[in-house]
Amino acid sequence: MADALKIGIAGLGTVGASLVRIIQQKSNELAVTCGRPITITAVSARDKARDRGIDLSTVTWFDRPEDLAEKGDIDVFVELMGGAEGAANVSVRTALQRGLHVVTANKALLAYHGVELATIAEEKGSLLNFEAAVAGGIPVIKALRESLTGNSVSRIYGIMNGTCNYILTKMEKEGLSFAECLKEAQRLGYAEADPAFDIEGNDTAHKLSILTTLAFGNQIAADDIYLEGITNISIEDIHAAAELGYRIKLLGVAQRTDTGIEQRVHPTMVPVDSVIAQVDGVTNAVAIESDVLGELLMVGPGAGGNATASSVLGDIADIAKSQPGAQRVPVLGHPAATLEPYRKAQMQSHEGGYFIRLTVLDRTGVFASVATRMAENNISLESIVQRSKQHLAPSHHQTIILVTHATTEESVRKAVASIKSEGYLFGEPQVIRIERPKEEG
Amino acid sequence: MADALKIGIAGLGTVGASLVRIIQQKSNELAVTCGRPITITAVSARDKARDRGIDLSTVTWFDRPEDLAEKGDIDVFVELMGGAEGAANVSVRTALQRGLHVVTANKALLAYHGVELATIAEEKGSLLNFEAAVAGGIPVIKALRESLTGNSVSRIYGIMNGTCNYILTKMEKEGLSFAECLKEAQRLGYAEADPAFDIEGNDTAHKLSILTTLAFGNQIAADDIYLEGITNISIEDIHAAAELGYRIKLLGVAQRTDTGIEQRVHPTMVPVDSVIAQVDGVTNAVAIESDVLGELLMVGPGAGGNATASSVLGDIADIAKSQPGAQRVPVLGHPAATLEPYRKAQMQSHEGGYFIRLTVLDRTGVFASVATRMAENNISLESIVQRSKQHLAPSHHQTIILVTHATTEESVRKAVASIKSEGYLFGEPQVIRIERPKEEG
Repeated sequence: MADALKIGIAGLGTVGASLVRIIQQKSNELAVTCGRPITITAVSARDKARDRGIDLSTVTWFDRPEDLAEKGDIDVFVELMGGAEGAANVSVRTALQRGLHVVTANKALLAYHGVELATIAEEKGSLLNFEAAVAGGIPVIKALRESLTGNSVSRIYGIMNGTCNYILTKMEKEGLSFAECLKEAQRLGYAEADPAFDIEGNDTAHKLSILTTLAFGNQIAADDIYLEGITNISIEDIHAAAELGYRIKLLGVAQRTDTGIEQRVHPTMVPVDSVIAQVDGVTNAVAIESDVLGELLMVGPGAGGNATASSVLGDIADIAKSQPGAQRVPVLGHPAATLEPYRKAQMQSHEGGYFIRLTVLDRTGVFASVATRMAENNISLESIVQRSKQHLAPSHHQTIILVTHATTEESVRKAVASIKSEGYLFGEPQVIRIERPKEEG
Repeated sequence: MADALKIGIAGLGTVGASLVRIIQQKSNELAVTCGRPITITAVSARDKARDRGIDLSTVTWFDRPEDLAEKGDIDVFVELMGGAEGAANVSVRTALQRGLHVVTANKALLAYHGVELATIAEEKGSLLNFEAAVAGGIPVIKALRESLTGNSVSRIYGIMNGTCNYILTKMEKEGLSFAECLKEAQRLGYAEADPAFDIEGNDTAHKLSILTTLAFGNQIAADDIYLEGITNISIEDIHAAAELGYRIKLLGVAQRTDTGIEQRVHPTMVPVDSVIAQVDGVTNAVAIESDVLGELLMVGPGAGGNATASSVLGDIADIAKSQPGAQRVPVLGHPAATLEPYRKAQMQSHEGGYFIRLTVLDRTGVFASVATRMAENNISLESIVQRSKQHLAPSHHQTIILVTHATTEESVRKAVASIKSEGYLFGEPQVIRIERPKEEG
């Protein structure tokens, strides 16, 4: 049997502690499967004294992850600290410069420095694996980077934030408000005390930016993504969606179009009988549409110590199974030097179906006016529902719900603006984009 | 850039022709992504004269695949002929003995000779890749063999036969009989003229036997699988399932139990709101439950020239990206020498819920008798429905539908046998097993 693969782990939070436990418990099986033992020789974390329920008696402790990366007796540096800058950034860079392989679960680091880090790794002949950075336990990075080689991806989309999906699922199943469901998510530990990063869509955007690059071969553009969170979704939207045969999910979508690449994160109506519509709670899902394979959908746990550790361990095992320097899997699916500039498609030119919910004054002519504004912008309607039921709108108000056939964002924005200028609208119009799986397209 | 990877393709049917076309069309991208060109240097097929719409002017033609394997100027032998014996078997063996890497889409070859071939490949330091052999375009082999390293799988199940899933979907959506849907599947080319291999479950069993070995590390046991096809499923079963909140799918299920490994292929009721229940038509799906990752579900095309070629190409690309002899991925997930004997769990000891549909004489006491026979066998019931509607049973007959809580196959068989002996039953009782995703368990 070959020499042990020596790994150093920086960060012993939930994921790090799970990883140590699993590697120690399964050392025999791992050695057989990988053809060599995997040994944790060094770790680094903030508080040496803390009891993590794991045995660290045989490993070297480093107070600073940078020191572990620079001096640790290791073949692989495993970064589980998080954050795009600071110690994670410096130590990963140091490890790669030193010629070590790196495994990381850090989406922010990849989203903001992925290309640079990939360049170093490829120059050094090292592997930089990051399966856990997107969609937790789902092996979507491996699918894009390896299985889909030779495929040209046309669209990739997914549910990549468990917090949002938990809230939307709970709103639908229990008829509760957004605020109530957020509170419950916080109580259960599914949402942070400051939930903005999740519910505003930023977390999904980071993950999406990484998938976009793997799918389309462009430079990563994490800050140039159309973003709409779920804070604005009301129980009325969810009920209306259900009546029309849709469910609302926060999707990250990246799509190749004639004018460039669309990257967008927004609440999305998906057909209720589509597979992705059934993905409930904190579960994640990613769909990839490509020219050769067709549509592939992967569903699994998006977070959690063990699920994330499983992806990290898979990445480590890939390194253990290959000879040093023998792998040429490009870090971002395409060699870093060949990545193209990000050519952004303007959101205005996005094409698709739209759900539009308006609260209007209950008077003659309003309905006709709404229909006319749509027609003037060449928007054809799949369905239009007018109702004045008390529970959906204040008295003397009516709710009008429109579902459009495929049209452009620009047309919808113009139509909505001209409706707003008519003076019969109460509050803001609700506009939710519709996304359909390919076969139903 | 490194030397080209030279491949030889044996078999130029739908998949083979797709593969040649894709490799030729995408040669530049493939060379960039893989770090070296992929070149088809030789092929073998039955009829040299046949027009396949592909350019073979620069490749060496072999009439016999065995000759291609033995003498072709190739690094990788790609076997796309099919069949467990004969030319496929001989030529793959020859290629491996010669030290070539092998890529195959041949499930029968793997199911019956996988361990032997894996042994040769591992002795020679060659790769034997077979992503396309199970579930077409879905990268389930890679997930089991690589991503899930270190995971202990508890259950793997899936929809792995497009013909059966097409028929069951069509029966449900259109209310047609099995025979009508089979005819339509044949008309569309989804079913063979002799459909037995698909609809009796044998095709699923072959695929399942391969997954079982990857999941549990046992010798492949393709002929020792509990088998029930879908020919017996009536539209009444599908309607009753729908009313009770289930859909019927032909599943292959492998499960670790206290007494060994269960391998079974049978019509199965899955909860209508589960993700796998939404997998319609010829689409395939595989779910893997394991200790570290949790549940992973993959959905995608299970057949078709392009989808299958995509998996074959991914396998070839994996070889192109690694140095010769540098990869130590065990062919069957575990080194062939360490595979354990197949310890079969008896079907009698299978535990789960059951759906039982009985057509009985409409007379006093029958219902009580059925309930008593269940109770005598310690079977507790989740629901029991009695009805005498004309459309469900001939006049003077009644239909009784039982759904049990978890019980054993043995108990159900005993209860059904004692009900049969009572003399009030018309026809055969219908018994369909229920399978639940873990989280709903």
